[in-house]
Amino acid sequence: MFLRNAWYVAAAADEIGPATPLGRTVCEQRLVFFRGADGRVTALEDWCPHRGAPLSLGRVVDGELVCGYHGLHMGCEGRATAMPGQRVRGFPPVRRLPVAERGGFVWVWPGDAAAADEALLPVLPWDGDAGWAYGGGRMHVACDYRLMIDNLMDLTHETYVHAGSIGQAEIDETPCRTRLEGDEAVTERLMHGVQAPPFWQAAMRAHGLPPDAPVDRWQVCRFAPPSHVMIEVGVALAGQGGRDAPLAQRASGVVVDFLTPETATTMWYFWGLARQFRPDDDALTAQIRQDQQRIFQEDVAMLERQQANLLHWPQRELLRLNIDAGGVHARRVIERRAEAERGSPGAPATIPVMAVQAA
Amino acid sequence: MFLRNAWYVAAAADEIGPATPLGRTVCEQRLVFFRGADGRVTALEDWCPHRGAPLSLGRVVDGELVCGYHGLHMGCEGRATAMPGQRVRGFPPVRRLPVAERGGFVWVWPGDAAAADEALLPVLPWDGDAGWAYGGGRMHVACDYRLMIDNLMDLTHETYVHAGSIGQAEIDETPCRTRLEGDEAVTERLMHGVQAPPFWQAAMRAHGLPPDAPVDRWQVCRFAPPSHVMIEVGVALAGQGGRDAPLAQRASGVVVDFLTPETATTMWYFWGLARQFRPDDDALTAQIRQDQQRIFQEDVAMLERQQANLLHWPQRELLRLNIDAGGVHARRVIERRAEAERGSPGAPATIPVMAVQAA
Amino acid sequence: MFLRNAWYVAAAADEIGPATPLGRTVCEQRLVFFRGADGRVTALEDWCPHRGAPLSLGRVVDGELVCGYHGLHMGCEGRATAMPGQRVRGFPPVRRLPVAERGGFVWVWPGDAAAADEALLPVLPWDGDAGWAYGGGRMHVACDYRLMIDNLMDLTHETYVHAGSIGQAEIDETPCRTRLEGDEAVTERLMHGVQAPPFWQAAMRAHGLPPDAPVDRWQVCRFAPPSHVMIEVGVALAGQGGRDAPLAQRASGVVVDFLTPETATTMWYFWGLARQFRPDDDALTAQIRQDQQRIFQEDVAMLERQQANLLHWPQRELLRLNIDAGGVHARRVIERRAEAERGSPGAPATIPVMAVQAA
Repeated sequence: MFLRNAWYVAAAADEIGPATPLGRTVCEQRLVFFRGADGRVTALEDWCPHRGAPLSLGRVVDGELVCGYHGLHMGCEGRATAMPGQRVRGFPPVRRLPVAERGGFVWVWPGDAAAADEALLPVLPWDGDAGWAYGGGRMHVACDYRLMIDNLMDLTHETYVHAGSIGQAEIDETPCRTRLEGDEAVTERLMHGVQAPPFWQAAMRAHGLPPDAPVDRWQVCRFAPPSHVMIEVGVALAGQGGRDAPLAQRASGVVVDFLTPETATTMWYFWGLARQFRPDDDALTAQIRQDQQRIFQEDVAMLERQQANLLHWPQRELLRLNIDAGGVHARRVIERRAEAERGSPGAPATIPVMAVQAA
Repeated sequence: MFLRNAWYVAAAADEIGPATPLGRTVCEQRLVFFRGADGRVTALEDWCPHRGAPLSLGRVVDGELVCGYHGLHMGCEGRATAMPGQRVRGFPPVRRLPVAERGGFVWVWPGDAAAADEALLPVLPWDGDAGWAYGGGRMHVACDYRLMIDNLMDLTHETYVHAGSIGQAEIDETPCRTRLEGDEAVTERLMHGVQAPPFWQAAMRAHGLPPDAPVDRWQVCRFAPPSHVMIEVGVALAGQGGRDAPLAQRASGVVVDFLTPETATTMWYFWGLARQFRPDDDALTAQIRQDQQRIFQEDVAMLERQQANLLHWPQRELLRLNIDAGGVHARRVIERRAEAERGSPGAPATIPVMAVQAA
Repeated sequence: MFLRNAWYVAAAADEIGPATPLGRTVCEQRLVFFRGADGRVTALEDWCPHRGAPLSLGRVVDGELVCGYHGLHMGCEGRATAMPGQRVRGFPPVRRLPVAERGGFVWVWPGDAAAADEALLPVLPWDGDAGWAYGGGRMHVACDYRLMIDNLMDLTHETYVHAGSIGQAEIDETPCRTRLEGDEAVTERLMHGVQAPPFWQAAMRAHGLPPDAPVDRWQVCRFAPPSHVMIEVGVALAGQGGRDAPLAQRASGVVVDFLTPETATTMWYFWGLARQFRPDDDALTAQIRQDQQRIFQEDVAMLERQQANLLHWPQRELLRLNIDAGGVHARRVIERRAEAERGSPGAPATIPVMAVQAA
């Protein structure tokens, strides 16, 4: 179950080259993405109207997608524009989906095209800001994307799943607070005067801070529909103002999680970290990316097994504890909006922009 | 959907050794093939009447198939002939299917045995003719065999799928003509005064012809039920008569495609080339076989993805352009015959022998 | 179809370490096994009541199982005992299953817990007896466990499946006798004055007996519900009393086969050999274990293909010859007991202890 009238990340921008289309399934729709003559990305159903071959096996010629089977030219509007020896005017079109490119991602809107509005794209404060660095990656995960939302909105799991990197007992010991801001759910945990765990000690060292010093650590998880989770994270030397401490005394950033349903039980996970310390240090970006990938693979191992268990015991209810409040809220928002989509497919509720605290 | 009262290639003759049976599924029937005392091949259901083990895991002893589980002896008639310590007279028989061996292939008739007639086997002019050489291979393909018929009856795909070997723009630019000859469909394309593509340049070189010389190139695709496609192919020095040019001035042959349905969405592909130049050159045969295998793997990659697309969008119609006429005719012939089979299973319509132009 | 009110082997005892739980599916129930503070094994449903994660991904701390996702502490009774920041009293319990540890195995009772009685565990004469040595292993097999019962109760297959190790023509030539002893089925074959096959020649050599000497060989297959097969096997110098010959003149043992249904078409196979010759020779134990593994893999290859054939032809009946009597009896016992279980789930019929002839 997922929303259709919403922007989802379909790909990293560099997955779609100037001549190479990309096939990817989003919300159970088989799609092909390619760049037209102006470099802008088009998304169409991955179906050649001639014989049903996937257009994504073709190549881009002069801004059009040429089918790799028999050479039908597909234009950016989803209409065949030419084919050797054929008149293509009567060929049935394929559906074109609204696409946007922002923040290094290609976004697609699987639902009613008339409702697509780039103003509804999330605001990414680090996009184009030299004070930030961004690194990230992509994983295919065999679970309902909502299990990943739950995971990201309840970080007590770090103590168990990521004991060697970002977990620490104080996460369990410090209560979180969850609130709703419109259709966004925010779960916040502030830890005072703790020892930083290994991942953050490395960040402090890179940032020129003493890694053994006591710190204030924060985690502010923010869900926004359809399935984006941004987590403000960081450590600051204890007593310097926490997340409001001067940049020189804190290592902080935003864990970026764009979750894209593929089918009911599989998803694409676009993850990354936008950070505000040593933004010019590319080696650090690469190192963090590698660490983060290893950490998120630990989540994937757990979630795929959890998904298998849920399929085996489909009738069982899950508990909804206080730590689960963020995920519970997120699911309610999704359900309410899905209900609205069923009622009036052309009129999705307003999607508030996602905002994270800027530096 | 496939015909049952017809000959299909089940195996290359050398897949069935003197002592080694072969298990293979043809038209959704699990079969075992083995050679009796006289060397002739028998086809039976791959089922031991004792405990249901596959007979194909056994071995051939004195012309009978001995089950590899408990030693039941299965005779060529599909009746148990012996078993240690048992009286086998009352054992239920397994079905025997008509088999023929011709042209280096083992053929099986999955339908009504009474209607099986070796006179209905295709005529293979190169079989036993020292003026021809034959080389080929076998592939398992995850698609409806009719997609492969379509593929072989519309060679415009060569320009896109096989751009580096046999494709050339003139295929697209030269209209084809399709005609029906009884239940056979013939699609013909003649290109005059063109440059030979890489595969044919190599053939010309091997044949002692100047590879850069302009040539006349031809492709005559001939479908015959149930699922055989023979393609007369070749190049001749331009203006020497094309496919009727003297052998010394042309490199030509027949692309042989025997398509055997395994299930509704999988097939066995027996492919090869019978050629009329340098027939004694075994190294050339091996080289061509290798080139052809690589080329056909390009088809397989496309067709398996096309099949997946058709399963995803089962309601969508495909276009039937002029270039598709050969495949469209072939499907109509199959459907008409299948209708006849349903009406009178014991009386298949006459199957005309397939004939290709001899040298 | 399998019995629920019965003991099955769930694991070798050393698969469950002091801190490491084991997840395993028995009779379609996903279970987690772990050792409590006293070292005793507990079996619970492999489900964390919090969010449905598999408890088997957790670890054991102070004798309780700590969920690897969010740290719920699960006690040996199947009730949550603690969770950071939570009151767990109202958490729903998971089912606990009766468990026993005996003979190097962990046993589980998937049915009515009130009926579980350790007195119903099979008697293993070699357990704790220095006159015996035991070695064995475990395999996952894609077949109904009843096909394995059939296999083990009709050893004529050795002549075909294991021709190079334990098979010999005399097995086929010597009739077997099958009798019922309560709910146990016993199939016996005695071969007099034969040559030992390779596996037994090696055993004779190890035992200091002339491997080429004529021997009496015996096979006494004993099925006991739900799915245990013990096979007394051995060779003795001919005319010395066969299985009653003095230990110095025979190499003998018991092939141990505990078959545990996983699903309707998959099983866990716990196999081994308890032997009465050179019990202190660990290298011999290792060698026999390796030989036996290779032999049983031959069975697995056959049975998985047999299972596939039975699924393809679900309506076909199998023959029930005299050699199949053991398996036929075993299936009848299982069916009768299953019928009784359906009638009164809390009252399983008495399960007689399995006894094998002691030295």
